[in-house]
Amino acid sequence: MKAVETIKQIRLAIARQKSKSQRIGFVPTMGALHEGHLSLIRLAKKHSDFVVVSIFVNPTQFGPKEDFKKYPRNLKKDAALCQTAGADLIFAPVPEEIYPQGFSTYVNVEHLTQGLCGASRPGHFQGVATVVSKLFNIVQPDAAVFGQKDAQQLAVIRQMTRDLDLPVKIIGAPIVRERDGLAMSSRNRYLSLEERQQAVALSRALNMAQRLVKSGKRESGIVKRELIKVLKHYAPLGKIDYLEIVDNATLKPVKVIQKNTLLALAVKFPSARLIDNIVV
Amino acid sequence: MKAVETIKQIRLAIARQKSKSQRIGFVPTMGALHEGHLSLIRLAKKHSDFVVVSIFVNPTQFGPKEDFKKYPRNLKKDAALCQTAGADLIFAPVPEEIYPQGFSTYVNVEHLTQGLCGASRPGHFQGVATVVSKLFNIVQPDAAVFGQKDAQQLAVIRQMTRDLDLPVKIIGAPIVRERDGLAMSSRNRYLSLEERQQAVALSRALNMAQRLVKSGKRESGIVKRELIKVLKHYAPLGKIDYLEIVDNATLKPVKVIQKNTLLALAVKFPSARLIDNIVV
Repeated sequence: MKAVETIKQIRLAIARQKSKSQRIGFVPTMGALHEGHLSLIRLAKKHSDFVVVSIFVNPTQFGPKEDFKKYPRNLKKDAALCQTAGADLIFAPVPEEIYPQGFSTYVNVEHLTQGLCGASRPGHFQGVATVVSKLFNIVQPDAAVFGQKDAQQLAVIRQMTRDLDLPVKIIGAPIVRERDGLAMSSRNRYLSLEERQQAVALSRALNMAQRLVKSGKRESGIVKRELIKVLKHYAPLGKIDYLEIVDNATLKPVKVIQKNTLLALAVKFPSARLIDNIVV
Repeated sequence: MKAVETIKQIRLAIARQKSKSQRIGFVPTMGALHEGHLSLIRLAKKHSDFVVVSIFVNPTQFGPKEDFKKYPRNLKKDAALCQTAGADLIFAPVPEEIYPQGFSTYVNVEHLTQGLCGASRPGHFQGVATVVSKLFNIVQPDAAVFGQKDAQQLAVIRQMTRDLDLPVKIIGAPIVRERDGLAMSSRNRYLSLEERQQAVALSRALNMAQRLVKSGKRESGIVKRELIKVLKHYAPLGKIDYLEIVDNATLKPVKVIQKNTLLALAVKFPSARLIDNIVV
């Protein structure tokens, strides 16, 4: 599995593919790949001829007290996983390649970035929007795939891509879960055994909410109260960071759950903050 | 001279040229074209095969009390001028094409945008950076030409292009002046006869400063004082908005004038605010 480190190298490799009329698919990641990422790569391959995976732990999307330093990095293992999933090229730059001395331009998406994760992670989505717009300009993909697990990120990137007229098709991919329902995440490895057992509460709560909605309970207030009950019962170690019922495109709170309503939640365990969501 | 109004049309026209391996040159303008703009078009033509001129009075770069509404608009005349200068296609969208309902993404260049025009026109460079990055994504030019008259704008666009990895070569073009030295500007037409006569003070002051520097006076403080004297003497109707001696790339003030120092000034006349500059 070939990996390149510089913008010059990746541009050259992509120009070569484009000259052969190959459609470029793109999966931006921070590495520490799991089955969720691999599903994105496979989906990208379906939409393109040549799939680039970027592996870059982006410093600007971490808060000063977040886990930038300890975020897991293992390029060798990631490269092997990329290969099994059918990726064609890895772009793994060092931070200085992406943020050289004097870097000072940022992309800001307003409104969408205010609530949910944006509320407890100020600056996070500025970092995401900036690095993704840079990566799009470097890789110039025809299509890029993002996981639905980061629902707000997906909404922000859709908005940014539309607003800045980036000629990239954004594809959302379904959440991949562990056998017990826990949404896959590179941060799950931070969890203690006890936390890991309790972490299933997130998906369990969302499944319960979905059943409630199907049975006709559509008032957000009622569904929220039931969600909180399940979370508190099954995850006593977790602290609810947010629990929102919003429109899946605008991320604005809805009072009554309808089509394309996003139920999103974040729970802080002592060792990791986990998010999960469901669109009903 | 062909003009298109929609993003779809311009993309189609450009894809056609790119499929013939034509290099795309780009000159973004707000219309009300004068000889200065035409020099940009001619320069773009030297660097490319197919020159697109955008004509778009960009609302987001005007302050609430500025001249957005009265800014001169005359597409027919502009189109004729574009033709004489060798442009190949005009992109003249309506505001809703560029800023559709729900638009909420902005590009911000920090530091460079704080002083000079940025200080008296808050939000101006956010509007400029946002619309230029959008236009670059729409037109996908190989090279784009900007006038040195808007020295800070040129520095901001260079920085943004580098920071966001936009694959566009930025070319700066020298200021084009009237016979008496006044830098050409679409806003010169706002001036009364008396103001127009006094407006020559800007270039006269800058020329004097250049002579001072050549004669060995390199202290910014001294040169500034002399500049102010000339401006006050020849342009009593004008109010100095700023007068800065800065590094041409970083726009940071310099105490001693050296290579690549930018002398930039803005003067507010009752009918128009004029800017001018010189790099010594």
